[in-house]
Amino acid sequence: MAEFSIDRFVDRYAARAAGMTASEVRALFAVASRPEVVSLAGGMPYVRALPGADVMEVARTVLAEHGDVALQYGGGQGSPGLRERLVMLMAAEGIVADPEDVVVATGAQQALDLLGKLFIDPGDVVAVEAPAYVGALTAFGAYQPRFLPIEIDDDGMLVDELEQALVRGERPKFVYTVPNFGNPTGVTMSAERRQHLVALCREASIPIVEDNPYGLLRFEGEPEACLRSLDPENVIYLGTVSKTFSPGVRVGWALAEQSVVQPLVLAKESADLCSSNLTMLMTEHWFSNDERWRGTLVGFVDTYRSRRDVMLEALDEHLGVDATWTRPRGGFYVWVTVPAWLDTKALLAAAVERRVAYVPGTAFYPDGRGANQMRLAFCYPTEDRIRDGIERLGSLVHDETELYRSLQG
Amino acid sequence: MAEFSIDRFVDRYAARAAGMTASEVRALFAVASRPEVVSLAGGMPYVRALPGADVMEVARTVLAEHGDVALQYGGGQGSPGLRERLVMLMAAEGIVADPEDVVVATGAQQALDLLGKLFIDPGDVVAVEAPAYVGALTAFGAYQPRFLPIEIDDDGMLVDELEQALVRGERPKFVYTVPNFGNPTGVTMSAERRQHLVALCREASIPIVEDNPYGLLRFEGEPEACLRSLDPENVIYLGTVSKTFSPGVRVGWALAEQSVVQPLVLAKESADLCSSNLTMLMTEHWFSNDERWRGTLVGFVDTYRSRRDVMLEALDEHLGVDATWTRPRGGFYVWVTVPAWLDTKALLAAAVERRVAYVPGTAFYPDGRGANQMRLAFCYPTEDRIRDGIERLGSLVHDETELYRSLQG
Repeated sequence: MAEFSIDRFVDRYAARAAGMTASEVRALFAVASRPEVVSLAGGMPYVRALPGADVMEVARTVLAEHGDVALQYGGGQGSPGLRERLVMLMAAEGIVADPEDVVVATGAQQALDLLGKLFIDPGDVVAVEAPAYVGALTAFGAYQPRFLPIEIDDDGMLVDELEQALVRGERPKFVYTVPNFGNPTGVTMSAERRQHLVALCREASIPIVEDNPYGLLRFEGEPEACLRSLDPENVIYLGTVSKTFSPGVRVGWALAEQSVVQPLVLAKESADLCSSNLTMLMTEHWFSNDERWRGTLVGFVDTYRSRRDVMLEALDEHLGVDATWTRPRGGFYVWVTVPAWLDTKALLAAAVERRVAYVPGTAFYPDGRGANQMRLAFCYPTEDRIRDGIERLGSLVHDETELYRSLQG
Repeated sequence: MAEFSIDRFVDRYAARAAGMTASEVRALFAVASRPEVVSLAGGMPYVRALPGADVMEVARTVLAEHGDVALQYGGGQGSPGLRERLVMLMAAEGIVADPEDVVVATGAQQALDLLGKLFIDPGDVVAVEAPAYVGALTAFGAYQPRFLPIEIDDDGMLVDELEQALVRGERPKFVYTVPNFGNPTGVTMSAERRQHLVALCREASIPIVEDNPYGLLRFEGEPEACLRSLDPENVIYLGTVSKTFSPGVRVGWALAEQSVVQPLVLAKESADLCSSNLTMLMTEHWFSNDERWRGTLVGFVDTYRSRRDVMLEALDEHLGVDATWTRPRGGFYVWVTVPAWLDTKALLAAAVERRVAYVPGTAFYPDGRGANQMRLAFCYPTEDRIRDGIERLGSLVHDETELYRSLQG
């Protein structure tokens, strides 16, 4: 028999697999999951805020009354009853939709993958915010596009930059944005920018993919209109129940025109046949009780608002001299910029050593930028742990700064 | 503003989307789901055989004792506890495995998609049985391979044909097979063919993807050794709990070398972040009670065996003159060949009119063959309905034959 080695598989991989390599950051996160480390890295919702007895009751009802359906294969588009509930959830954000135009996915992440599969040929251009949600970069990245990164400021995507790129001749297959309390920055796109983006993309016949996981997690102020409600024809909208209910049910969705819905359903069936009828039915039942889901949402928002406040206060106290950061009005994240000579990726090992973790900024750019930036999540740790974590981070940055200055001086 | 039409989206799709069009068969299946139609089309397990109270108890235990985990995001590889149970399930089929080498997927269907993503560049060759599982053809098809169809007979894949293709210079990225009670034929690969296939692929350094959803649904006789146990180094093994427990939990898996596992986990995370912790925990708990899962399995097997017997008897009675078919020793399917001048796709509308449905044979070939073949599933309808359905099918084929002869004569 021939000699075997693991390389024989590697040699056979598709070109796109070149991007599928585990980073050193991954290994550090394994360490960061130890209880003594305050992880400000993961964007995990605080599911302890869910009323456990109510979730149990929903599971019991679904299995008792719809057990044969719950345990069977479902349809590729997702159950009609769930799609009606998702339409209601979108109505809570001002979007008018038809359940026929909704495709249920295994989290909104799967919708990103299916859209990539549907739209992207190798070499196609996809416009993304810079920084952008890392999961979108990897999902689209598997289809080998060239990313066109568009900078953001405190009012969201610099739509002027996108316009200039179009003038230069760039022709993205679509523009991807997280306009509300974005990941990783926490920034929200202003009304003016939204109007500009929608008009520009309609004029240029470029679809917009609007990803809105955090829209209902608003701590203050009034909501901006969703891009989808500004231009229902040209915006593919993505939602999820991972932040309003539970990520454990793996329910997200895409809302789109029929010409997109139909191939998307086929792509979904090809990718995993269907989502879980059990968790789709549980989600449908969860959102059938208005008082329950809205009450739970208020609980989530109150928790996250307090944690955001604690994080911003602690940042002021411990990093005020050395760094700048965003001030999100909702969502999960604060985006921190440290002095240019600091490399947050190189620094992560030392941070974990000091029992605090974050996500280095480079993960969120397709082009290697962000070396002196980091994403901090305030959604999961308690207020005390957030204070401790930021204090540890502050002392680390302070010590590094002292060291740097002593070496300079 | 510019004029809009749905074509603007279609014009932007990737080349691979050309295959993502709904067939006319799809519309007929919507009709076939009416209760008066006996559907011999769908491969749905008979989940009513599941002990409902036990499933409820498992859900209750998981939510009561592990609610915070069940409702949270999980790891991309799948929970360690579940992977241990899956290793135990594989041991029941003679496979020795390590939980570290298992990647949980949203059904084995997702494992097919992820393997396609990992291995297939456009134009690469993938060897498949002819006929082959339609879901594998669409999953791999999205990555634009050229399929190399290898004929099967009552002993499974004609490995000699594959060998000749390799001699001619074909170099498939991998060989895909469902060796036990295959979909759509119900055929099982003989011991001799298994030995030949494994030796041939090792010699040629071509990985085998062994998909084994039905292996534990054996009605009689002794099991053949899994390809994976004949050559653990060169076989990527796929399993699912959809047939031994429930498809509603969407739990399947891949077992492979670490060099495959690592990029597969990254591809999984890019595709949908993680599977549902809730349904993974339920599956883990279900298979933690040996008596329960084995007892349920025996119930499934007894039900399917009786239904297989009824279908074969009815075929003898009603189609004995006009058709030939396979005689499966397990699984879900019988594969029927009708006279060459009959087109089962064209005939499906008339069949549904007569209140019986099947899957036309062409769906299972990448090259348009199978026009006079059909897949019949005995897994879901009751014995009475199977008898009725086959009788209706028999009278249809008989009438068509009379008509054909009268037109000929």
